[in-house]
Formats: sequence, structure tokens, C-alpha cells
Amino acid sequence: MRSPLHQNQLTLILGLFQAAFLVIFALYGSYDASALPNKEKNVEEANRMTNLYPLFQDTHVMIFIGFGFLMTFLKRYGFSAVSINMLLAVFTIQWGIIVRGMASSHHGFKFTISLEQLLTADFAAAVILISMGAMLGKLSPTQYVIMAFFETPVALIVEHICVHNLQINDVGGSIIVHAFGAYFGLACAKAFGKKEQRGHQNEGSTYHTDIFAMIGAIFLWIYWPSFNAAVAATDDARQRAVANTFLSLCACTMTTFLVSQAVDKHKRFDMVHIANSTLAGGVAIGTTANVVLEPYHAMIVGVIAGAVSVIGYKYITPFLSEKLGIHDTCGVNNLHGMPGLIAGFASIAFLFIYDESQYPAQYDKIYPGMTRSEDGKRLFDEKTQALNQLMAIGLVFLASTVSGYITGLLLKLKIWDQVRDDEYYADGDYFETPGDYDFTSRIVTSVQKIEVAEYNPLSQKEV
Amino acid sequence: MRSPLHQNQLTLILGLFQAAFLVIFALYGSYDASALPNKEKNVEEANRMTNLYPLFQDTHVMIFIGFGFLMTFLKRYGFSAVSINMLLAVFTIQWGIIVRGMASSHHGFKFTISLEQLLTADFAAAVILISMGAMLGKLSPTQYVIMAFFETPVALIVEHICVHNLQINDVGGSIIVHAFGAYFGLACAKAFGKKEQRGHQNEGSTYHTDIFAMIGAIFLWIYWPSFNAAVAATDDARQRAVANTFLSLCACTMTTFLVSQAVDKHKRFDMVHIANSTLAGGVAIGTTANVVLEPYHAMIVGVIAGAVSVIGYKYITPFLSEKLGIHDTCGVNNLHGMPGLIAGFASIAFLFIYDESQYPAQYDKIYPGMTRSEDGKRLFDEKTQALNQLMAIGLVFLASTVSGYITGLLLKLKIWDQVRDDEYYADGDYFETPGDYDFTSRIVTSVQKIEVAEYNPLSQKEV
Amino acid sequence: MRSPLHQNQLTLILGLFQAAFLVIFALYGSYDASALPNKEKNVEEANRMTNLYPLFQDTHVMIFIGFGFLMTFLKRYGFSAVSINMLLAVFTIQWGIIVRGMASSHHGFKFTISLEQLLTADFAAAVILISMGAMLGKLSPTQYVIMAFFETPVALIVEHICVHNLQINDVGGSIIVHAFGAYFGLACAKAFGKKEQRGHQNEGSTYHTDIFAMIGAIFLWIYWPSFNAAVAATDDARQRAVANTFLSLCACTMTTFLVSQAVDKHKRFDMVHIANSTLAGGVAIGTTANVVLEPYHAMIVGVIAGAVSVIGYKYITPFLSEKLGIHDTCGVNNLHGMPGLIAGFASIAFLFIYDESQYPAQYDKIYPGMTRSEDGKRLFDEKTQALNQLMAIGLVFLASTVSGYITGLLLKLKIWDQVRDDEYYADGDYFETPGDYDFTSRIVTSVQKIEVAEYNPLSQKEV
Repeated sequence: MRSPLHQNQLTLILGLFQAAFLVIFALYGSYDASALPNKEKNVEEANRMTNLYPLFQDTHVMIFIGFGFLMTFLKRYGFSAVSINMLLAVFTIQWGIIVRGMASSHHGFKFTISLEQLLTADFAAAVILISMGAMLGKLSPTQYVIMAFFETPVALIVEHICVHNLQINDVGGSIIVHAFGAYFGLACAKAFGKKEQRGHQNEGSTYHTDIFAMIGAIFLWIYWPSFNAAVAATDDARQRAVANTFLSLCACTMTTFLVSQAVDKHKRFDMVHIANSTLAGGVAIGTTANVVLEPYHAMIVGVIAGAVSVIGYKYITPFLSEKLGIHDTCGVNNLHGMPGLIAGFASIAFLFIYDESQYPAQYDKIYPGMTRSEDGKRLFDEKTQALNQLMAIGLVFLASTVSGYITGLLLKLKIWDQVRDDEYYADGDYFETPGDYDFTSRIVTSVQKIEVAEYNPLSQKEV
Repeated sequence: MRSPLHQNQLTLILGLFQAAFLVIFALYGSYDASALPNKEKNVEEANRMTNLYPLFQDTHVMIFIGFGFLMTFLKRYGFSAVSINMLLAVFTIQWGIIVRGMASSHHGFKFTISLEQLLTADFAAAVILISMGAMLGKLSPTQYVIMAFFETPVALIVEHICVHNLQINDVGGSIIVHAFGAYFGLACAKAFGKKEQRGHQNEGSTYHTDIFAMIGAIFLWIYWPSFNAAVAATDDARQRAVANTFLSLCACTMTTFLVSQAVDKHKRFDMVHIANSTLAGGVAIGTTANVVLEPYHAMIVGVIAGAVSVIGYKYITPFLSEKLGIHDTCGVNNLHGMPGLIAGFASIAFLFIYDESQYPAQYDKIYPGMTRSEDGKRLFDEKTQALNQLMAIGLVFLASTVSGYITGLLLKLKIWDQVRDDEYYADGDYFETPGDYDFTSRIVTSVQKIEVAEYNPLSQKEV
Repeated sequence: MRSPLHQNQLTLILGLFQAAFLVIFALYGSYDASALPNKEKNVEEANRMTNLYPLFQDTHVMIFIGFGFLMTFLKRYGFSAVSINMLLAVFTIQWGIIVRGMASSHHGFKFTISLEQLLTADFAAAVILISMGAMLGKLSPTQYVIMAFFETPVALIVEHICVHNLQINDVGGSIIVHAFGAYFGLACAKAFGKKEQRGHQNEGSTYHTDIFAMIGAIFLWIYWPSFNAAVAATDDARQRAVANTFLSLCACTMTTFLVSQAVDKHKRFDMVHIANSTLAGGVAIGTTANVVLEPYHAMIVGVIAGAVSVIGYKYITPFLSEKLGIHDTCGVNNLHGMPGLIAGFASIAFLFIYDESQYPAQYDKIYPGMTRSEDGKRLFDEKTQALNQLMAIGLVFLASTVSGYITGLLLKLKIWDQVRDDEYYADGDYFETPGDYDFTSRIVTSVQKIEVAEYNPLSQKEV
């Protein structure tokens, strides 16, 4: 039994946070000119619903349906997966708008909100939901919220440094969203790890929960081009980002099937690979989706990402769990972590493959630091920019692991409501469950043996 | 056994209606200039696919996936939920185009069709599908169609009076769509109520049907901003409607989790709240989504809506069912009814919070009755407008309950095919069901006990 | 047990194909000007993301979610349905871009890629996925890929002849996509047919897999207007295509329910009809979605399509299977084949119902061959155009059946990995399956009888 304090903890915490958010929005938040009737607008602002809204909505589907259903694969954790995903997303959207708004404010702490802020708030939610994937089934709702509370400002400050100080290009956020979320989650999992979390009887899927997970996986796959294109600056850059992501995903998916079968003893596909590794191509091309000008370059990135991701699921995830004590429930290292690093290193490689003459009139939108002023000078040359991209990778890796590890230690504190050992990866303590819960999510897994052993009439008729 | 007359009733009715629709469309319906090759178009008409189509498609997903899957939560009624939802939607779309077209015709009964009419037809479908939620599992397919047949013209005439005579602002249709649909459904449920409908063994969910319902819930959640923004007049009004709805939904969702846990004895979340009350913020901000200029105002509305909705599910729905004999299967009072009333009262409050100087050059698009002519005069002042908004709420409540109650009495007539008492909330009489139907939707609910009682080997191994 | 050669066959084949695709894209493929930063763009190219991307994404959802989930209805083949759908789609997208690009190249074999090519690649994928529907459950992954490899170039060359030589109008691809895919699949099924494929114990659904299938069905239904409108030339033609498709689908859905009940002995609806025949109206109006100017014409087409489709499922599919040895797992003849032919014949009828004076200034976009040059002459008159539409139907039927039949014979060769007789319509040989696979997908179907026979306590309590 949870203590009354722990039982009511989330209520108190959500109440405090929502009250605080309200006060902060009331004092500091207002709508941007583009959303207000009484302000002058430029052409781009006046057409934001036409230009940006469809891409925003695609991203929105990824956050709530995509991540939410992808995590329903666990046989006893479907309610939590889809619901806590929703809770963390709405928490982080509000908290992210505040943090990003205040951090980049030019007027005290005052910040403005338009469709762009809603979009980047969805991006912030993605960071936290990726980390949630590594911790899936191990935290109480309270702990998830606390994790999101600490992770969001670190992620957004690191993003701010990468974008404004290092001036890196990371149009699809593969470094600052995907790699950050993944390595924060892994470090948190390390610090929070207990041996009872590994090899747990609840950790596994059922036939239909694997199909539920494909709803999330395929919507992520479909809308990933929108994610990578949404903040690109011009129509052609967006179209390029879409096409590069699309082709990378196609090549990645072919490779996923190929490698999934190749590494399996019985030459069967693993649904974990189909649901996750097929998406790695979207991450790996994310940083440079607006840079790549040759279709086959995007496809090569996709092939590499697919292969690395499947190999990660097959060999690296078990190794991390068994040897290093890093238990990664969803394998976010293979879908977001390593593909995010590939994206980062690809961004360095492409700096030397393409040159500035190929991006007339929009180089400043891609690499502001390498844009020449009227006298032909520029802040960075290609090597400096490459070093900055590298430093961003390093900063993201360092900041995410350190902050993730500290957060993991913090979450271990007994002041927080903790999941009982035998209730890891299970809904029952936190959700009212219908009468078939135990049968559908646990007993069903072993029914075949009983059936075969005891009901010969059926076995004979059916087999 | 149903009598042959009852068995063939729907075939006859659908045949008659579809034939009548065809004749009416042939005699009176034609495409609008914006959809025809040989007509002059203004800029807005010439770009309707770019400006309106994405919002229309989002709404379309809400109607068919959103409402359809939200109602699949019942363990034995999934086929009906998703299929009858589809049938009622296509019936109402055609019937709604006819009624609205003829009612607002300036040329005899002739009406024209463009993307706007398809969108408003989807809105009309929403009214009926909300009422369907209150009646879910209690009507035969024939009765659902008859209900839609009677409800549609009443709803559209009331809408016409509200918009054209009272000149109210209700951009997201929270009063004329959500409240109307909910109170029609409740009154219909009252008139149609039988004690066998309450506490029925079929009324309940299974683990996987609750997850199916979340597909509908989350798509409704994601696309609600489009619903509230679709008929707003300018790009900034649309963007504002999107942002207000988005923020209201976020605050509402936080509040839903908070209150759902707080009111539960074991401090667990209830999936009914997660799937439904999280959406109440979209309804409650609907009427004023284009009016609200301060983000935190939208959030306050969301917080109130979430709290009221969960409390409604917990206390008011059982009270209505047990004490007043109003059985509301989906709890539409909590998702559409009370939040719709909140939306209406919020529209009165915001009339006095914001003034006309804040909406230069588009006040006529929001409040045509309060727009000043060149000599500075206007039809209504704020108080008259507020009174009109209040009268609209009253009219909607009155018209919906009276027409709903009469429709409920009418549906009781033995001339209509009626659901058998033991087949309430069940597919079996109206859909061919696969071999596992009874096991998956009924027996599974009790299997755990048997398993534990009889198969000690499994129990020992697994527990 | 599969031989090692067969077990590793797919790995080799996917590896070879992906390598070949990469080389071909590297040598011949490049981005179109509209996606490149350094090229001049006209207005249409400069706004492709705004004008085309939402329609493209809707189509994309149809291909991956729509087709993928529609095929999950089989109780033991859900992993394969959704995964192999994905594999064939990404294979065909790449292969289709190459074939179409090279076939229509004006510079050696060089081809360019923009959003339009991604869209038409999705169309090519649709052809193959329709054929997959006829073969569902009967082929190994290797054989599916081989089928796609041979079918794609035939389909695209036939399309090229229809569009460029016969200059037919087929805006939604009902002839060149739907009819081709269906009749290729049927001929392939005939050539590949074995009696063990018919009446197989695995061929059937469960309660929840029928609901999974509705996810696919409804997304196809919702986005079909986008499919038919995407390549229409002007905003009004697109809006018309949307409205015609929408109204045809509504009328078709009403008719589907009507006829489904009418033809059933117990007057119950069949979920196969609800999930499939409701979509026939989208196919049947596809060829002329941009032509039809009267709403009721579209509705008549929808009514006919719905009726023909249900009758096809009820009587023609069993006849084809039992009498002609053509086993059509998904009944693609009823959803894509016959409705595709209806679309073709409707295109001939509408040639004589509407005349050129009704399409000022865009006749060339619909019927380039009937457009008058400055001296008033034109290449084809209505009769020649009608003959061309007819020839296109004939060519598609002939080419698809011949190439499908040959492909079917080819797939029978023992060099390919073949599905074992008792593993038709089952995932187990090709996918790792969770512990409940056999229970959930096979045993569950018969549990009710046991339950009733053996557990009287439960039966008494529950029934």
C-alpha cells in the first residue's frame, strides 16, 4: 500500500504546477502580433495558418499518437503509456513555453506565443517523451512529472547555447532533441537502476499490443518529414527536408527488414525493429535535412541508421542492461541516441561535401555564422562551423548524461511515490483496470500450454 | 427473434432516404462557384483548398475516427460504435447539407455546395454523434437513423436563429453543436429510459477496448484546435482560436489527471476521465476561441472545464442515472453538455472583459450585431449581445431537451425495431461476429477467477 | 523448416535491391529545381509545400496506415499485414521513382525528384498494395518483393501509355491504379492458387482484429478526397474532386449498410462490407472526380459502387474462389477492381453528359487531346476520347491479367521461399511472436464452447 502522502503527492504537485503556470502566463505571457487582431503583420505572419499549421498538426500527431501508441507495446502498461505520455506532453508544453520564452526574452521575462511557440513546445515535449521511453514502466506518475520538470530547462538551455552561441544547424533537432532526450534517459535509467527492473515478468508484449504500437510507429514514420521540415526557413528548404527525410526513411526501412532477419537465429523479423528502427532514418537525417542536395546522400544516411539501430537493439541494448546496468525499456538509444549522433556527425561531413555557393540567398537561414557580411567576411569558416557542430554534440552528450544521472538519483529519494518491485511495467497501481486486466495482460501469455495440456478435444480439432 | 418487418426496416428506411437525398440534390443542389470551372472567383474562393482544406480534413478525422473510436470503449459494442458512427455521419452530412442549404436559400429551395458546406455538414454530424453517445448501446440502427432524421433539422434551425437572428458568436459551436447534442441526447435518454438499461452486465470495458477508445480520444484532442478555428474569419483569428484551444486543452488535461486521482478512493486514474474529460477544455473555449486575447484566460477556462467534467463523471452521471432515470452511456453531459454551458457563460463574461477597441477591422467578423456603421451606431451594445448569448443558451437548452424528449418517446414506439433487453450494449443482433466474440467481449472479464481457482500450476508460476 | 537458402533469400534480395537503388539514384537522380536553393522557381513551384504537401500527407496516411491496417483483419496475420505493407511500400516508392523517372526522362536516364514525384511514388505503391490484398497471407516476404519488382514497371508503363499516348483523364487513378492493381492481383492469385489456400482455418478474423481493420478503413475513407484531388490542376478542380469524392463516399456508405443487411440471412451487417465496400465510392468516382459538375451525379456513382461492391463480396468472391480457383483474400475485386471499371465506364458516360463549354480555360488540364488549338482544331473529338478511355480500360485489364498471371507462375517456382500449407495467413514463420500468439489468434476462436461446456459456475453467473 502506498502511504497517504505518496497517494496524494501527484494531486498536490499537479495542482501547484498548474497554478504556477497560470500565474506565470498571466504575468508574463501574451500572444504574438501574428495572433492578435490589433497588430500589423508582415506577409509571413499573416499567412501562418496556411504555411505552418499543417506541419504543426503533423508534429502534434507525432507527439500524442506517435509517441503515445509506440509505447503501448508493453502488455500490462498500455493505459500508462498512452496516458502518461499525454500528461508529460501537456506539462512540458506549458513549462517549455515558459522556459524558452523567458530565456529568450528581450523584455524582462515577458514572452509571446504564436503558432511557432506551440510548435517548439511540441519539440520540447519530444525531448521528455524520449527520456520517458528509457524509463518506461519504472516511474510513478509523480516521478515522471518531476523528471520532466528538471529535464525541460536543461534541454532548452542547451538548445539555446547550441543555436544562439554555437550557431549550429540542427533543423530537425536530432542533436538537441533526440540525442539529448535519449542520453538523459539512459543516464537517468543508470542512476535509477535496480536489478528488479531487469528481466521482469511484466516486460514483454502481447500480440495485440504489438499491433497497437504500430499505430504509433507508422504515424511517426508518416509525419517525420513534417517534423524535420517544420522550422526550415524557405519553401524549397522545406521541400528538400521533406524529400530527404522521406528517402532516408525508405532506405532505412528496407535496411531494417534486411538486418532484422539477418541477425535472427530463425530468420524471423522482430516487431521491435519494425516499430522502431524503421524510424531511425528520420532521426539520422534530421540535422541536415535542409542541407543535403543529393537524394542518394539522404538514402545512404538512412541505410546506415537502419543497420545501426537494429544492431543496437540486438546487441547493444542487452549489453547495456546486463553489463552496465543501464536498462532502456524502449531502446531509445537505438531509435534516438545513436541515430542522433549519426545525424550530428553527418552534419560535419556534409559541411565539407557541400559548399556555400550551392545555397545562394539562403545560406544565412542555414548557417548564420558562416554567412558573409557585405565585405565578404564571415564569423566562422567551415572548420569552425564543423567544430561547433562537434562541440554541440559533446555538450548535448555531457549535459544530458550529467543532468539525467542527477535526476535519476533524485528520483530514487523516498520522498517520491515509488513503483513497487512487482508492479514495474504494470498499470494496476495507478489506473483503474477492467475485469479482464490480469487475464488479457498476464495470464494470456501462458494459456497455450494449459490449453494444449488440458483440452485435448480442442487441440485435436484445431491443430 | 426480430419480426421480418423489423429485420428489413433499416433496408427500407435507408433506401427511401438515399433515394430522397438523390432526388433533392438533383433538383435543388449544385456546386458553388468556387468549385466550378466556369465561374469568376475572388481571392478567397480561389484558394479554398489551401486555406480551408487542411482544417476541414482535421475536422473530418474528428468525426469519423475521433467520435467513432472514442465510443469503442464498450467491451461488446465496438463494431456498432465505429460503424453506426459512420452511418449516422454520412446520413447527417447529406441531410444536413439539404436542411441548411434549403433553410438559408435565397433562390427558392436551391442550395450550393462548396468546401464550406462540407465542413458545416461535418459540424451537423457532430451534433448527432454527441447525442448518439448518450444513447450508445440502447438503440437499433433504425432508431439511430430516425433520431438523426428528427434531430438534424431542429439543431440546424436553432443554429440559424442563434447565428442570424440573435447574431451570437459561437465560433467552435460549443453552444449550438456540443450543448445541443448533449441535452438532446440526455432528454432522449430520459424519455427512452428503461431500468434494464442501467447496471447492465454488458456495460463496461475491457483492457484493449479502453485502448481503442484512446485512439479516438487523442485524435479529437489533437485536432480540436482545427474544429474551433475552421470557421474563424481571418488568419490571426484562426491562429488565436488554435492557440486558445491548445492552451485550454493543456490546462484541462493537467486538471483532469489531478482531479481524477483526487476523487478516487484508491487514488488511481480512471480511463473514462482520461479519454473524455481531457477534451472538455476544447468545448469550453469553443464559443470564444476567436475572442480571447490573453493566453491565461484560455487556460483558466480549461482548468474549470477539466474539473467540472471529472466531477460530472464521478458524481453527476451516477446521480442522473440512479435518481433521475437519465442514463448517459458515454457521459456526454460531462464532455459536451456542461463544458458547452461553460463556453456559453464564458462568452458572456468575455464580452465585458474585452472591448471593441481591441478588435480593429474585424469586429464585424466576430460580433456583426455590435459593429458600428459609418455613423457610429450599432444594433446591439455589450449588454444586449450578452443577453443574446444568454438567450441562445436558453433556446438551445429548451429546444434540445423538448425535441430530444419527444424523439425519445417516438423511438419507444413498437413500430421501430427495438434492442432486446439482454442485448443492450452488444453487437451480436446487428453484426456478424467472429468466433471469439463471446469470449473476448464477455467471458474474458471473469476468466481470472477461474484461472486462479482451477489452474494452480499457472498461478504458482506466474503470480 | 525452410532451407538456409530460403531463410536468407530476403536478406540477399533486399541487400541487392537497396544497393542497386542507391547506385541508380547516385548516377541518375537529382532534386527538382523546386526543392533546390540555387534555382529559379515559378509561383507554383515556390509554393509547393503550401499547395501540395497537405494532400500528399493525406495520401501518405492512406498508403501506410490505410492499406496497412485494413489488412490486419486476419486473426493471425496482423504483424505481416502492417509490416509487409510497409516493406512493399518503401520498396515500390524507390523503384517507382526510378522507373517513372527513367521512362519519362528527356536527358538520357536522368530523373528529378520533387514533392510531385513522392506523391506519384505513393500512387505506384498503391498499385502494388492492392495486388498484395489479393495475395494476402499466401506469399513469403521474398515473394511479395519479387511481385512488386515485376508489377511496378508494367503498371507504370501502362500508365504512361494511358496518360501520354491515349491522353485519358484518370485523375484519381481508378483505372491505372485501382483496376490495374486488382486484376494483376487476381490473375496472380489464379496462377499461384492451390486448394490449400481456400477454406483455410487461419482465414478469418477475431473481434479485435476487425476493429484494427477499421482504423485503416476509416483513414482511407477520410483521406480519399485528397487522393482523388491531389493531381488535379487548379484549385476549383481540386475542390470539385474533393466534393465529388466526399458525396460519392457518403452515398456509397449508406448503400453499403443497406445492401449488407438486405443480402444477409439474419439481416446483420458484415464488417467486411463496412470496412471495404464503403470505400468503393471513392474508387468509382476517381477517374472523373475533376469532371463531374453536378453533385447528384457523384452520388449516383457512389450508390452503384456500394451496391456492386457488397454484392461482389457476397456472391462474386465465393464464386471466383470456388468455381474459378481465384482466391482473393481481401476481395480487392470488390473494392478496387469492379469499382475501377465503373469509374472507367463512368468516364465515358460523362464525356457525353458534359461538354467542353462547361470547362473554360482549363479543358486542356482535363482533356489535353480534346483541347482546341488557336485555329479551333483538336486532336480528338468526344467519340475518339471515349474510345481512348475504353481502350485504356481494355489495355489495363489485359496488361494486368497477363503480367499478373505470369508473375503468379513465376512465384510458384521452388527457387523462392514458399509459405507452408498450414502456415498460410499466419505470422509465425516470419515474425517473432509473443507468448499469447497462439491463444489470441487461434485458440480464442473456440474457447466459448469449452467455457460453456466445462465451467457451469461462470456460465450461470454470466449468461
